[in-house]
Amino acid sequence: MTRRFLVVAHRVPVDGNFTLNDLAGSGGRFDELARIISSVFIVSNGIRRDSEVTFHLVSDPRHPRRVRLVGSRLKYLNPDERSTAALVKNGLGRGWDRPDVEMETTPGIFVGPLPDPEGALREFAGRPGAVWLHESGAPLRGAELPEDPEFLLSDPYDLVPSEEGCLRDAGVRRISVGPRSLPSSQCVTLVHNELDLRGP
Amino acid sequence: MTRRFLVVAHRVPVDGNFTLNDLAGSGGRFDELARIISSVFIVSNGIRRDSEVTFHLVSDPRHPRRVRLVGSRLKYLNPDERSTAALVKNGLGRGWDRPDVEMETTPGIFVGPLPDPEGALREFAGRPGAVWLHESGAPLRGAELPEDPEFLLSDPYDLVPSEEGCLRDAGVRRISVGPRSLPSSQCVTLVHNELDLRGP
Repeated sequence: MTRRFLVVAHRVPVDGNFTLNDLAGSGGRFDELARIISSVFIVSNGIRRDSEVTFHLVSDPRHPRRVRLVGSRLKYLNPDERSTAALVKNGLGRGWDRPDVEMETTPGIFVGPLPDPEGALREFAGRPGAVWLHESGAPLRGAELPEDPEFLLSDPYDLVPSEEGCLRDAGVRRISVGPRSLPSSQCVTLVHNELDLRGP
Repeated sequence: MTRRFLVVAHRVPVDGNFTLNDLAGSGGRFDELARIISSVFIVSNGIRRDSEVTFHLVSDPRHPRRVRLVGSRLKYLNPDERSTAALVKNGLGRGWDRPDVEMETTPGIFVGPLPDPEGALREFAGRPGAVWLHESGAPLRGAELPEDPEFLLSDPYDLVPSEEGCLRDAGVRRISVGPRSLPSSQCVTLVHNELDLRGP
């Protein structure tokens, strides 16, 4: 089973034009994205090879882009925010000569176009594994989860109404990790732990 | 109920002499300490005021120090590693004119001496709330927890045998968060979630 996460990133510059010294500001909260990546992949002394995370970068409506990190191929990932951000920033700086093609910028990191972000979200919402991590969802513990779950999270900015609409219209199942509203990076850790405890 | 965490930090420079651009290397894995701080305190749009974390900085046997972050008084904390590290680094740079006194370097951050690190660990081990987060412990879910729990974690470096000895000799109860070995920052998130679900 592959564990998939999908994150809508509302303010990260699509061309990677931000400074590593100010991931929260100039990076459009890339600090939280880096922590999400770390939570998706990092275990003690290793990488979760069975996991993947996709980011929809929608800050620039002219050039929305998709970034995918694939655990089975991933190299050069360290747990810290700065080096993680540098790795993705490097990828975002590339591919502008052929913006219509997805390329693997370093092993396991794919950067490509996302011509229709809401269409892609609707596509996600239609897949049988779609799960929306949402405060008003059913409790994660004991919840019935699809065979190949794919968990949608937001970055620190809420989903916009049209994004929420895509998910609501499709009736995506909602799951909640607990009574407190938590950053997405912490939610990822809680989802992994639940799946770890359920076993293979 | 206050939620307390205690972390032995083996390599963080006690005087804060590290660069924010290399928290993992020059900071002695301060990147992970910053993530621990973030996991202890950060919830969506707020701070866990009922939580505290203490670090035993033992890298320099001549000047071991203790850093305490107290949620009820904490100010200026942001979720990202860099600004968190800057806040603590600032505290570690101060107090050298009176190294025998604990001072509040910014609201909610206390820096002071730790004359006898192993004695302090033995003292922790003797308290009724002591819990050792350990891979071979009893499962966290369903575990009986003390009234005022205080959770011991290590930084990315294992406890040394004499430190382990303090805990074993006192028979500190061990709790495990799950089947995977995880960074301490992720363990903190799992502990908080368990306590959140159990309610006040």
